[in-house]
Amino acid sequence: MTKKPRTRCPIAYSLDLFGDRWSLVIVRDMLMGKKRFGEFLDSSERITTNVLTDRLSQLEADGLIKKTSYQTNPVRFEYGLTDNGRSLLPVLQALCRWAGRHFPSVGRAPTKFMKLGLD
Amino acid sequence: MTKKPRTRCPIAYSLDLFGDRWSLVIVRDMLMGKKRFGEFLDSSERITTNVLTDRLSQLEADGLIKKTSYQTNPVRFEYGLTDNGRSLLPVLQALCRWAGRHFPSVGRAPTKFMKLGLD
Repeated sequence: MTKKPRTRCPIAYSLDLFGDRWSLVIVRDMLMGKKRFGEFLDSSERITTNVLTDRLSQLEADGLIKKTSYQTNPVRFEYGLTDNGRSLLPVLQALCRWAGRHFPSVGRAPTKFMKLGLD
Repeated sequence: MTKKPRTRCPIAYSLDLFGDRWSLVIVRDMLMGKKRFGEFLDSSERITTNVLTDRLSQLEADGLIKKTSYQTNPVRFEYGLTDNGRSLLPVLQALCRWAGRHFPSVGRAPTKFMKLGLD
């Protein structure tokens, strides 16, 4: 982690890592198979280039994602979850269950997403 | 919800409600029995008065907490979780399990917290 944690509380610590409106949206996209900068930009939340660049860099610094080059000349990068990042899946699934139960106007998470980790 | 949701995605929707560094810390405190403004200020993360006021107001507007007066002359308020807010418990417990597994330097969540909802 690149910042000094506020306390030893695991909840506050987690929020120091991704307590914002965008980081977990990017993690969601990666869990669903997206890898490239343009793919994240294409998601329906319409993240801006600046915010996406900032969050990718922070998530990488915190060890939740990794960046690898998939092409040289020109070099191009793609992004994937580390084991730490991938294991946020149960947190995101719990969020989906919560929102789905209390806010009927919200869409259901894709079945594919809710079944990730079961195979 | 007081803001227009970004999309129908339940994850993005949830982050519209509490995607910040503080809201879930306040929910945690309420799950552990804290009710009063001064009690939230006393938590070890040292939330500021302004941020606390703002988050309590937003969480109330979004239906996650309720504010009731416990004294008149002068009037004093306390805060509690609504059913919607209380049912965030599994999300917070999943966060605690995640952080506890991947960041050994982070403290364990209190057993009392992890056992909430089991009785």
